[in-house]
Amino acid sequence: MSSAASFRSEKDLLGVLDVPAQAYYGIQTLRAVNNFRLSGVPISHYPKLVVGLAMVKQAAADANRELGQLSEAKHAAISEACAHLIRGDFHEEFVVDMIQGGAGTSTNMNANEVIANIALEAMGHNKGEYQYLHPNNDVNMAQSTNDAYPTAIRLGLLLGHDALLASLDSLIQAFAAKGVEFGHVLKMGRTQLQDAVPMTLGQEFRAFATTLGEDLARLKTLAPELLTEVNLGGTAIGTGINADPRYQALAVQRLATISGQPLVPAADLIEATSDMGAFVLFSGMLKRTAVKLSKICNDLRLLSSGPRTGINEINLPARQPGSSIMPGKVNPVIPEAVNQVAFQIIGNDLALTIAAEGGQLQLNVMEPLIAYKIFDSIRLLQRAMDMLREHCIVGITANEARCRELVEHSIGLVTALNPYIGYENATRIARIALESGRGVLELVREEGLLDDAMLDDILRPENMIAPRLVPLKA
Amino acid sequence: MSSAASFRSEKDLLGVLDVPAQAYYGIQTLRAVNNFRLSGVPISHYPKLVVGLAMVKQAAADANRELGQLSEAKHAAISEACAHLIRGDFHEEFVVDMIQGGAGTSTNMNANEVIANIALEAMGHNKGEYQYLHPNNDVNMAQSTNDAYPTAIRLGLLLGHDALLASLDSLIQAFAAKGVEFGHVLKMGRTQLQDAVPMTLGQEFRAFATTLGEDLARLKTLAPELLTEVNLGGTAIGTGINADPRYQALAVQRLATISGQPLVPAADLIEATSDMGAFVLFSGMLKRTAVKLSKICNDLRLLSSGPRTGINEINLPARQPGSSIMPGKVNPVIPEAVNQVAFQIIGNDLALTIAAEGGQLQLNVMEPLIAYKIFDSIRLLQRAMDMLREHCIVGITANEARCRELVEHSIGLVTALNPYIGYENATRIARIALESGRGVLELVREEGLLDDAMLDDILRPENMIAPRLVPLKA
Amino acid sequence: MSSAASFRSEKDLLGVLDVPAQAYYGIQTLRAVNNFRLSGVPISHYPKLVVGLAMVKQAAADANRELGQLSEAKHAAISEACAHLIRGDFHEEFVVDMIQGGAGTSTNMNANEVIANIALEAMGHNKGEYQYLHPNNDVNMAQSTNDAYPTAIRLGLLLGHDALLASLDSLIQAFAAKGVEFGHVLKMGRTQLQDAVPMTLGQEFRAFATTLGEDLARLKTLAPELLTEVNLGGTAIGTGINADPRYQALAVQRLATISGQPLVPAADLIEATSDMGAFVLFSGMLKRTAVKLSKICNDLRLLSSGPRTGINEINLPARQPGSSIMPGKVNPVIPEAVNQVAFQIIGNDLALTIAAEGGQLQLNVMEPLIAYKIFDSIRLLQRAMDMLREHCIVGITANEARCRELVEHSIGLVTALNPYIGYENATRIARIALESGRGVLELVREEGLLDDAMLDDILRPENMIAPRLVPLKA
Amino acid sequence: MSSAASFRSEKDLLGVLDVPAQAYYGIQTLRAVNNFRLSGVPISHYPKLVVGLAMVKQAAADANRELGQLSEAKHAAISEACAHLIRGDFHEEFVVDMIQGGAGTSTNMNANEVIANIALEAMGHNKGEYQYLHPNNDVNMAQSTNDAYPTAIRLGLLLGHDALLASLDSLIQAFAAKGVEFGHVLKMGRTQLQDAVPMTLGQEFRAFATTLGEDLARLKTLAPELLTEVNLGGTAIGTGINADPRYQALAVQRLATISGQPLVPAADLIEATSDMGAFVLFSGMLKRTAVKLSKICNDLRLLSSGPRTGINEINLPARQPGSSIMPGKVNPVIPEAVNQVAFQIIGNDLALTIAAEGGQLQLNVMEPLIAYKIFDSIRLLQRAMDMLREHCIVGITANEARCRELVEHSIGLVTALNPYIGYENATRIARIALESGRGVLELVREEGLLDDAMLDDILRPENMIAPRLVPLKA
Repeated sequence: MSSAASFRSEKDLLGVLDVPAQAYYGIQTLRAVNNFRLSGVPISHYPKLVVGLAMVKQAAADANRELGQLSEAKHAAISEACAHLIRGDFHEEFVVDMIQGGAGTSTNMNANEVIANIALEAMGHNKGEYQYLHPNNDVNMAQSTNDAYPTAIRLGLLLGHDALLASLDSLIQAFAAKGVEFGHVLKMGRTQLQDAVPMTLGQEFRAFATTLGEDLARLKTLAPELLTEVNLGGTAIGTGINADPRYQALAVQRLATISGQPLVPAADLIEATSDMGAFVLFSGMLKRTAVKLSKICNDLRLLSSGPRTGINEINLPARQPGSSIMPGKVNPVIPEAVNQVAFQIIGNDLALTIAAEGGQLQLNVMEPLIAYKIFDSIRLLQRAMDMLREHCIVGITANEARCRELVEHSIGLVTALNPYIGYENATRIARIALESGRGVLELVREEGLLDDAMLDDILRPENMIAPRLVPLKA
Repeated sequence: MSSAASFRSEKDLLGVLDVPAQAYYGIQTLRAVNNFRLSGVPISHYPKLVVGLAMVKQAAADANRELGQLSEAKHAAISEACAHLIRGDFHEEFVVDMIQGGAGTSTNMNANEVIANIALEAMGHNKGEYQYLHPNNDVNMAQSTNDAYPTAIRLGLLLGHDALLASLDSLIQAFAAKGVEFGHVLKMGRTQLQDAVPMTLGQEFRAFATTLGEDLARLKTLAPELLTEVNLGGTAIGTGINADPRYQALAVQRLATISGQPLVPAADLIEATSDMGAFVLFSGMLKRTAVKLSKICNDLRLLSSGPRTGINEINLPARQPGSSIMPGKVNPVIPEAVNQVAFQIIGNDLALTIAAEGGQLQLNVMEPLIAYKIFDSIRLLQRAMDMLREHCIVGITANEARCRELVEHSIGLVTALNPYIGYENATRIARIALESGRGVLELVREEGLLDDAMLDDILRPENMIAPRLVPLKA
Repeated sequence: MSSAASFRSEKDLLGVLDVPAQAYYGIQTLRAVNNFRLSGVPISHYPKLVVGLAMVKQAAADANRELGQLSEAKHAAISEACAHLIRGDFHEEFVVDMIQGGAGTSTNMNANEVIANIALEAMGHNKGEYQYLHPNNDVNMAQSTNDAYPTAIRLGLLLGHDALLASLDSLIQAFAAKGVEFGHVLKMGRTQLQDAVPMTLGQEFRAFATTLGEDLARLKTLAPELLTEVNLGGTAIGTGINADPRYQALAVQRLATISGQPLVPAADLIEATSDMGAFVLFSGMLKRTAVKLSKICNDLRLLSSGPRTGINEINLPARQPGSSIMPGKVNPVIPEAVNQVAFQIIGNDLALTIAAEGGQLQLNVMEPLIAYKIFDSIRLLQRAMDMLREHCIVGITANEARCRELVEHSIGLVTALNPYIGYENATRIARIALESGRGVLELVREEGLLDDAMLDDILRPENMIAPRLVPLKA
Repeated sequence: MSSAASFRSEKDLLGVLDVPAQAYYGIQTLRAVNNFRLSGVPISHYPKLVVGLAMVKQAAADANRELGQLSEAKHAAISEACAHLIRGDFHEEFVVDMIQGGAGTSTNMNANEVIANIALEAMGHNKGEYQYLHPNNDVNMAQSTNDAYPTAIRLGLLLGHDALLASLDSLIQAFAAKGVEFGHVLKMGRTQLQDAVPMTLGQEFRAFATTLGEDLARLKTLAPELLTEVNLGGTAIGTGINADPRYQALAVQRLATISGQPLVPAADLIEATSDMGAFVLFSGMLKRTAVKLSKICNDLRLLSSGPRTGINEINLPARQPGSSIMPGKVNPVIPEAVNQVAFQIIGNDLALTIAAEGGQLQLNVMEPLIAYKIFDSIRLLQRAMDMLREHCIVGITANEARCRELVEHSIGLVTALNPYIGYENATRIARIALESGRGVLELVREEGLLDDAMLDDILRPENMIAPRLVPLKA
């Protein structure tokens, strides 16, 4: 392991270091690994980010080739290397910690070095023989971390976006299906945890579908609006220093073609270099979805509370024994896990927000944390939604009899009688019912306030769960 | 003060209470005032919310009149009362604390009672003679707090939106003007607080205008997208119980006409009753603008640091003596205040987010806090932007000589020479310069690496601050 | 109003300004008022802060007098002015916004100017005749905002601390009293909103008292630990430049005597000048109490949910009618308001945290926001606790029959039988009960698994709500 | 791999599942792994938590043995298994995701199953032959997740605490050493990023040591105060149902002995079961340290800004090449990484806070997230502090000449002359200096306001950086 043969020597501005012989990454990656032992989460944890980096490198190489700056041989080798990464090969070589100083330089150099070494082998050279193809001079040509890295992050987010939308859409369909399935189950609605007025369990589940549907629509439009404008070509600070005037347009056009994403060049490259606004708003949107999911899961836990001393209107599928000490106990473990994911996403949004505020002058050096937190939020959100749908929503059943019984014993029924027996009678009946423990209908019948036909009509579910023509008030 | 004449007696479900005789609010408002002595911030603090409430009441009255539920006399009196509130009269009667239990019932009742009593006087009756016009039965007819209150909040936000946009726009113009004014001032750009490559001070200020311009564009589209869908007509939980089937469409249409806002009925009223997603995202967007302003103000403080031991590229206008102990000290007090406003807006966004997560079943009972925090963020943001523009940005001057001197002594200049003298020479020159304290140009000239004409050409500002055609690399 | 007589002219480094003739504040306060129109919350909103400022000025004047730097006449006049402020007079003259740039200079100058002008009148001069007694030279003598302001904030917090503790203590007593009152009410405990095992309602309320009791104990010790070390005497940056070497000890000693608080000089004045750690932890502790209160209020809302379709084990006192559309509805408005206060305190803690992180080099210029948020959290917390106790806790009643009925029908009872009938039997009985809707005891009796005497013994409340000797397992 | 032999069949309440034959965990762990594919961070990521779990199981087994509930043979086998885990063996068997529903049941069962299977093999049985020793009946005897899990978390935190303190202490020592090393380097202090008054670089670094020293002291006392009270023995909800009355005292006493930690039984077990207050405050304290570190790192980045266009008073050691495009650029990558860690810790604190607020009734089901976030914060904090010390602080050098030059050209020097030449002269000189670009001393000498001897005396570093006896003011 520590024999001379198992290392190769590499050199940079700061000196010489031994790089593991089999590693495709190089000295600058190694320095970063030694510097940043923090989260333990390497770049490879987020494959779309790696693919995004590879596509950026490919696009730059294409532009440089077209401008005559990069030889055909080098371009071919770099292209082969990028193709590997885009296919998912060599991702384990992206070893730098997601939390890193240097504004992403280490991530960018990790990509440059891995691509260079794959390319070198493709050209018949050995890893580390950078005289034939250089990580900086060739792979990173006409780029700075400050334009390549933010572009790769945006692209990585776009590349994963359809999967996120698909998971959300599947969850919405699951809720909508339950909305149909429970369309006939009459139950009491509750406001402020107090009995309110009747509704159907189907309406309740359809509302879950509706509210997430709004997020699906918004996420669909927001991602392209926020993420397709890239600063590739701005080099160090957005002035495009040392870049060919034709480079920016070429590189971005190539990147759009390669990725299939509608990428466009940022109008103000100075601004685009340091601006984190797109991530702040995108994360804010993810937070919104998380908040909605958490609210829904709170509701599922409330509605399934019991079995005997809670609301117990629905049953969640049992996923695991609930207790080692209490026989027969089954807990709502899936919604509980979703709640916790939501809280983490809210925490991620905060960390990202503070990082965005921490930018200074021509760069935001906290961008690695921003990238980390937003990729983390997306992955957690997607997994939580899949888990929720598959292990919980599709298996929910209704306790129809319980639902109806609660409606019938509810005092809230009196609201439906309001237009017919008057507010004063209604209030009086409500009070007697509450104090005596008796039922509202029983009392109304006893007093002869409404005849049975009328009562039946008023209390038909379809009449209680939607507006209806009521008698004119004087 | 405590004479019989200075109070009138009012009655509700819980009993009788003495209301100050001159008060236009009534017993339920008084109960809320007694219950909630918390923030000390009354509803009247946010006039657009009061106007929003009045417009909702007017729209409902119009719809009820058209459906024959409200007499012409009552409708006329209610209309007169609402007109007063919309004009800005009687706002001091909105005395309930912005933080309140009851999901906004107290705010809604404050509006119902104030309108009823103004209307009663307009009808020739005394305040409190609700037998002639009742806060609940008449002013609140066909409404629930659960539809009227969220609708009024949305409308209030829309009504104040143009003023927010105008303040933001003025600030952008101020930055853009400085961008033009400083267009010729060459300076060093900095990344990671380290010398990077040249740019102009004008580019720096234009980037501030650009980044805020993106927020202006987004806020402009986001507000109508998020806030124009209202749940008026849903009554208690969105089923529209006890409402006339024609009521929803009529009421929302009237509200749109009265307010001049493109309001539309929510498609799923059950969902719309409890959903806080619009506020979460809107607040997330305000947070984004706050984050950008804070970053800009951090930059302004850095750039004006000194006068002798800092960067000192720009001067902020002096607004107040800086120190009682240090003669002549003037501090960047305006940007400092903006930073703090930004932090409060981030804190508000968090409080609002947690409140949104706290909704349960058919209602979000934390909506009063959500309304409070979002109105507070908007007001603070607008005031901070006006302050920043008026008391700081318009008066900023550039220390042109200082900027140029820093460029000329900078080692970062070497980057511009890179394509001409090669990376190796450039690195070597950079090292010598750093170690000896000498200038890069001086060293280049000394070594005869480039002739003066060439150097002059390379270092012309217009050549350093944008991409240029560089010699082909081998 | 704009007649010459109603203004006086004052002058500072930046020029001349008209100050309202009747104002005790002066030109620098006026500049701050003009600069910072932000939160609308003036310093006077927090009387303890004003008193803290006055005590600091008094202590400094005492020390300066003793060192011979301040004449007896000036000292007497300043003392009279400070005494007024400490008594609560002239607080309305503290008009500067709590959010301000300048690291508190405006607040400090507001105090210097008000004291100077009160003192001038006491000396027989007119307001503004600073040649006889000067806000900076005399009132602010040997001080900098950077030591006087942080010292005043700490002192202000200490001065209000007993009232906060008293409110918390009263609330604890209220919960403890309910713990005793409900000591005999057997009910089901719930974990994960699912039926668990029996307990008493008294145990539940006693736990509320216990958990808040821990906070009382911790707040009691934390405040002096964190807040008694003051940096008075450090002047501008903690080096004590221009201060007499004896001044620090004298001034802090006087301040301790005047305030009755055990104040001590900070050991490292450089550190103490910029360090905000005490506020971060103190706010973190307030946040903890807020989180506990919010959890308790969530529980109260759950336990009182219903009346028919929820848990309904307790009744909260009715504080206001709950709905204009649903007759007889009464809502848990007081706990709901406490929840919202808690969310705001969490938001405040965040704003304060970011502000603390924003300190740079020898000062934290964001201290005004820190002061604002911590005073706001304390006031809200105290008011919310008083409200909760007075308007809710003391009036809570138990639905004893409902509690017992839920225990008797619960499947969780089977856990208590576990050691006697074995885990397998217990699990089987639990399943049958759940599927058939029948009672656990009924099934146990039917199967003859335990005789009635044994069952009665096991199910005696005192046997179920605490550990008991169980038969040895094989 | 999928051959029959490579799995064993296990059974629980929900049915039968195939468990990998070589796995020491069992069916319930497997269910949890299948349910919760979320963070990707398994329990084994935090070894102290695994050790804490093992110690709890050992202590319970000891108590159960002593009470005669557990046979000697089973006790011996469980003890052997626990010893393995405490030594660090088998940690890879703790495979459940840190984010999980079920309030930690899966973590607890993971421990129960792993211990049971190691013990079974020690007894000569095969994994899964639970008839000889059962995960629930034997390993989990007299425990509930609800007491075992929170106890293990607290213990895990205590076990790792010394290492955290040691890292913090080493960092403090490094800062203190620099405080001594730089004790003679005179420099300008800065407030609000503006030149203030002189100090030494040593004072600046000593202040970093002081402020972290306060956190060391507080963390040292806070951890035992918050974490040593455990709820072991409370079983399901704190009533201790089905536990022997002697069990609690015995088990906690054993746990204290085994762990060497001063653990004590919680006084109110009902409260202790659901209370998360200790974690909220402990995380709040970690957040405070993170905020301080972030502020320090901001300062280090400011002080090392440049090399030519910034402050450049100190040099940070170069850790990696800074740029691929800018020759010679070296960036402050280590402090930048610390900033990002701090932001993540602030985000963690928020997620934990919301989770703490989410507890309901007798349990806080969000405890797994709380545990995850607090262990994550501690690990990140410790690693960041080690990184900062080793890769940055110890290698910092001072640019003494630059520091002195900035002092000499500073206008802030005039503050030191204030007591000798008067405030008016000082202000006038300051203004001339600022406008003319000339030096303060030069002007004072030119005007003959002070003779050279006097000037030398005033400006001796030791006279400027501490209080000194100044001439009495009239």
